[in-house]
Amino acid sequence: MTTFEALYVPAPLREAVSDQAWLTAMLEAEAALAKVTGAEVDEDVFQPEGYDIVALCEEGRADASPVVPLARALRERAPGAHGPATSQDILDTAAMLVARSARSLMLAELDGASAAAAALAEAHRSTVMAGRTLLQRARPTTFGLRAAGWLVGLVEARQRLVDARLPAQLGGPAGTLDPELASRFASELGLEEPVVPWHADRGPIAELAGALEAMGAACGKVGLDVVLLAESEVGEVSEADGGGSSSMPHKQNPASAVLARACARLVHANASLLTRGEHELDRAAGPWQAEWPALSAALAFAGGSAAAARRSLEGLRVHPDRMAENARGLGEDVGAAAALVDRALARYREHE
Amino acid sequence: MTTFEALYVPAPLREAVSDQAWLTAMLEAEAALAKVTGAEVDEDVFQPEGYDIVALCEEGRADASPVVPLARALRERAPGAHGPATSQDILDTAAMLVARSARSLMLAELDGASAAAAALAEAHRSTVMAGRTLLQRARPTTFGLRAAGWLVGLVEARQRLVDARLPAQLGGPAGTLDPELASRFASELGLEEPVVPWHADRGPIAELAGALEAMGAACGKVGLDVVLLAESEVGEVSEADGGGSSSMPHKQNPASAVLARACARLVHANASLLTRGEHELDRAAGPWQAEWPALSAALAFAGGSAAAARRSLEGLRVHPDRMAENARGLGEDVGAAAALVDRALARYREHE
Amino acid sequence: MTTFEALYVPAPLREAVSDQAWLTAMLEAEAALAKVTGAEVDEDVFQPEGYDIVALCEEGRADASPVVPLARALRERAPGAHGPATSQDILDTAAMLVARSARSLMLAELDGASAAAAALAEAHRSTVMAGRTLLQRARPTTFGLRAAGWLVGLVEARQRLVDARLPAQLGGPAGTLDPELASRFASELGLEEPVVPWHADRGPIAELAGALEAMGAACGKVGLDVVLLAESEVGEVSEADGGGSSSMPHKQNPASAVLARACARLVHANASLLTRGEHELDRAAGPWQAEWPALSAALAFAGGSAAAARRSLEGLRVHPDRMAENARGLGEDVGAAAALVDRALARYREHE
Amino acid sequence: MTTFEALYVPAPLREAVSDQAWLTAMLEAEAALAKVTGAEVDEDVFQPEGYDIVALCEEGRADASPVVPLARALRERAPGAHGPATSQDILDTAAMLVARSARSLMLAELDGASAAAAALAEAHRSTVMAGRTLLQRARPTTFGLRAAGWLVGLVEARQRLVDARLPAQLGGPAGTLDPELASRFASELGLEEPVVPWHADRGPIAELAGALEAMGAACGKVGLDVVLLAESEVGEVSEADGGGSSSMPHKQNPASAVLARACARLVHANASLLTRGEHELDRAAGPWQAEWPALSAALAFAGGSAAAARRSLEGLRVHPDRMAENARGLGEDVGAAAALVDRALARYREHE
Repeated sequence: MTTFEALYVPAPLREAVSDQAWLTAMLEAEAALAKVTGAEVDEDVFQPEGYDIVALCEEGRADASPVVPLARALRERAPGAHGPATSQDILDTAAMLVARSARSLMLAELDGASAAAAALAEAHRSTVMAGRTLLQRARPTTFGLRAAGWLVGLVEARQRLVDARLPAQLGGPAGTLDPELASRFASELGLEEPVVPWHADRGPIAELAGALEAMGAACGKVGLDVVLLAESEVGEVSEADGGGSSSMPHKQNPASAVLARACARLVHANASLLTRGEHELDRAAGPWQAEWPALSAALAFAGGSAAAARRSLEGLRVHPDRMAENARGLGEDVGAAAALVDRALARYREHE
Repeated sequence: MTTFEALYVPAPLREAVSDQAWLTAMLEAEAALAKVTGAEVDEDVFQPEGYDIVALCEEGRADASPVVPLARALRERAPGAHGPATSQDILDTAAMLVARSARSLMLAELDGASAAAAALAEAHRSTVMAGRTLLQRARPTTFGLRAAGWLVGLVEARQRLVDARLPAQLGGPAGTLDPELASRFASELGLEEPVVPWHADRGPIAELAGALEAMGAACGKVGLDVVLLAESEVGEVSEADGGGSSSMPHKQNPASAVLARACARLVHANASLLTRGEHELDRAAGPWQAEWPALSAALAFAGGSAAAARRSLEGLRVHPDRMAENARGLGEDVGAAAALVDRALARYREHE
Repeated sequence: MTTFEALYVPAPLREAVSDQAWLTAMLEAEAALAKVTGAEVDEDVFQPEGYDIVALCEEGRADASPVVPLARALRERAPGAHGPATSQDILDTAAMLVARSARSLMLAELDGASAAAAALAEAHRSTVMAGRTLLQRARPTTFGLRAAGWLVGLVEARQRLVDARLPAQLGGPAGTLDPELASRFASELGLEEPVVPWHADRGPIAELAGALEAMGAACGKVGLDVVLLAESEVGEVSEADGGGSSSMPHKQNPASAVLARACARLVHANASLLTRGEHELDRAAGPWQAEWPALSAALAFAGGSAAAARRSLEGLRVHPDRMAENARGLGEDVGAAAALVDRALARYREHE
Repeated sequence: MTTFEALYVPAPLREAVSDQAWLTAMLEAEAALAKVTGAEVDEDVFQPEGYDIVALCEEGRADASPVVPLARALRERAPGAHGPATSQDILDTAAMLVARSARSLMLAELDGASAAAAALAEAHRSTVMAGRTLLQRARPTTFGLRAAGWLVGLVEARQRLVDARLPAQLGGPAGTLDPELASRFASELGLEEPVVPWHADRGPIAELAGALEAMGAACGKVGLDVVLLAESEVGEVSEADGGGSSSMPHKQNPASAVLARACARLVHANASLLTRGEHELDRAAGPWQAEWPALSAALAFAGGSAAAARRSLEGLRVHPDRMAENARGLGEDVGAAAALVDRALARYREHE
């Protein structure tokens, strides 16, 4: 249903947020639960091959959740399964597992984009170009400093993503389960241990969503600037594999930059749902059930924006002659541009 | 990638906004174009079986659009295909065809929900219940009037959806194609004819998105009120097939109402992207390419909210005794409630 | 508290959505209510000078509404005042009165912008410029056709604004008041008569918000395109009173276009709150109380975007030589551009 | 123009984000700049009494910024003033100064709300109530644990707010100013020193906006739960100074909870604009100029939500008898509720 997802999102990330991945994550949570509660359940029971997620979703309409039928199916096969958990424990924990595996893919894309931005900053430390404010030529700057600005944005977004807590959830039907058990459950899965259950206090989701928005904004900024610098009349950069056109051979579209921008908009729209809150009492009646597609989409498009920004930057052709020409008459004084590039590179290397 | 879509969206609507449906719509647009330009192209060329949408999307990254490789493939098979169109002509027109077929499915769900609300309004014209403001008991009203309020909301949302223009697009690379050709193209497809090309003036998309938001809001309102009236302590309605719980047999979750609310949130998030505008000059470099997943999601979840509201209302069990009990002490004067119900039913019947 | 409102919003519109204007509108609603209920109340009681809106707001915190203390003050002066209304009747009706007076101011700005766009379309019917897709030069078009695109967007947004229903509200505490009374009340105020009270069914608010978003999008589109065409390297238009800079005399900022864009973003953010719905039962416990600042802001910034677009267009300097230069090599064939301009002008004149 | 701001926002916070406060902050930035550049400027020049912010805004339309005329006025009085800064340096720095002073007021409200939540958690550690999922009674919990959930949400939001960087800005027209100067400038004002200028890389603004959203969400959650627990049929809590109604003496509206929810929605709407990004090249042409009203509104309403949540919690009347009655039949086993309360209190005390 996500239209043209292969256009936006790299295949591994599409896989990582697929229904199959969510099913696998739910079963991983159930398996960890069985382990920490000492339930003796055959491992085969937790293999995703034994379940049909579409059927679980359709059956799950009666409970507004695919976990209720999944837990039923599990218990039929192994009475000790699912233990004292409530369906939200499994689903929230699965969401964090999905987010974790998506995060590692996203970080790889972000790192690629950052490395490319750092290389551009370094290589063009002294490449003079026009600084542009309100899209008017203002004073001279360097392309290295523009790339350094992208780099700092990417590095800071990375930090927010890395810092986002991914806590397990195990509170039981009223959130009153023993925190010791929750602690062992979290530890078994390598997730964080929350202070108290967060069934209806969605701080962790909002924090993650904020980090995804930051990522989208940083990558979308790269895309926007590349689009503007690649304009026909500006012509200061172009994308290596910019799409041509059989009927218009003079055109060379900055397609990756365009996709980075498109993905950033889609991240923002989906993240916005995740930061709204308004979850009722001990488990929400609608706001929670709206999160799953929005979270997957925010993860996927954030990764898509990073992948597109990376493609754009890795193949970026810089045209110093056009930069010089466009900066003519603005003077030569680029101030402390080189020192600022060094600061950005130093900040980047702290985190490399 | 849309997590758990089978939980939210009826199967025919999932189909109607699927990548396969988009591909079919693009080919339908191409076929109509061939016809009105007099290109002699074998009909087989326009059969979706001949194309792989995932491959087109992956190939399309170089152009930030799946249509560019599709048009290339078409022209390889039939040199006269694609004619004077630009890729956005095909994709915008396809979006309108997708929206049209989704709309007819959505209207059926909305009509079901409206019929159920009308029946409740009629049956409970005199069923006294507490009016509640700020969730405090205020003055008596009737359940018929509450249902009449839902009904008017549904009917007005339906009207907005029906009124939303679905124009064809055929402007060519710079939007300068002969409007006569665009007129024949629109007519061939049964779409509206725009005044001028709307490649970067997205009024039609925003208008449609607004109608989908209105639908989500009307259906979400039903869901919210059902959730509140079904609360354990209120107990004035319950859903026929409300999910039980093996461990908590006293629970009966208003699952359809919950899903109607969840879908409404998802509509709002996606529609919000579609009403933002900011499309650059003659074709946008990012904002346009962000629309496709948001439009499909908004259509699907709007339909999902209507389907869920319909299920909730069609099977709604009303408990007049609890209503009477909860209204005790508020007096008996329900004012003009019955006359207001009649007004709502009359409004509904105008549009039936 | 609205930072720098005098930067964005013309003085009359600031006045029209001020707290004083809301107070006046509430009193106008109360006066009309007294009239249709036959209460004999001295007209002086309804003069805004007798009330302090800041004090009413502070006192109103105990009721989450400034109308409760206002109604109390009214009844102290004239026991027959406020009649059978509930506080939401007065406030919703006042909102519609505020919207109506803001609308007439907004329409004047929109009409000015449309007239300027029409004049540009007419004058530059044959002024060749580069069509730009993804900000790359594509094929030739005319500046007249670009202006015609703006014009159609403005005309269609105007239509949505004019079409937005502005219904009175008079339902009493549980929404059960006699619709005959509501009808006379609406008629007295020159507002529309709703089918049933809309205390918690916010279709009218959402519809109005959608129209304001459309207006912001149409005006923001003008702003965006002017900014892009005014870029130093493009140089095809400039604003007559574009801000210079003492230190950078070569700069000429398209300040009005920039403000049109800024206002459009602010409209979108505020309108988004108004289209969310989720109003509980017969009067919402939070969602309703959030509407007032968002509605005023959406009205003010929509008007601000129109005023800024108008200033930008009315003083726009068009540079056909640069257009010709930038279009060099793209050929001369502007297709049906002139005919499309005529279609846009015809559409505009229908509504003039 | 912010309708009814005295209803939502405490007077000191209204003051802290007023136009007068922004003017004062801009002049404080200018004074610090004069100091670090060694310009000899009479201190009187930086007194806000000498300037009229409304006039500066109206004059500033020509530059889409009130700082340009302010800098002009300053330089007329003292040629050495404004130094090498660009207008955005002053305005971004002023925004951070405004945010800092608003933050200290917000933290006081948040701390009051947290203390009240902690006291409730402690006092009601063993007060049994029904846990409610999907607004259906599920299993027993304690009111202490519900309050502990609020507490953790408030504490975590506080942390995000405290952690939000507030960097100074001093990059000059093209962002190339000496970072040493920027460092001294930041130090003079007690603001953070950024790695590189962030004129168009709005990470700091987005981070702050995210913290404000988190605050709104945490306070809005308190409001939502209080509204639900105060429902007539539930009756488990009531607000001390809940608004009565002359015509309906049985009503007692949870007015502060309602306002906390309303403010939270308004925070979300405004914050959403601030997390979007899309700032062009070295200074944006619209996206930046849209930030000021959104930032002030987000600050004010975030503080308003905290103040309202605080009032609600500080005066909250808890009705253990109703809690016991509503929980009848659910059993007595509240699991580890008391231990979880302790964990929440420990987390709170870390930060007290």
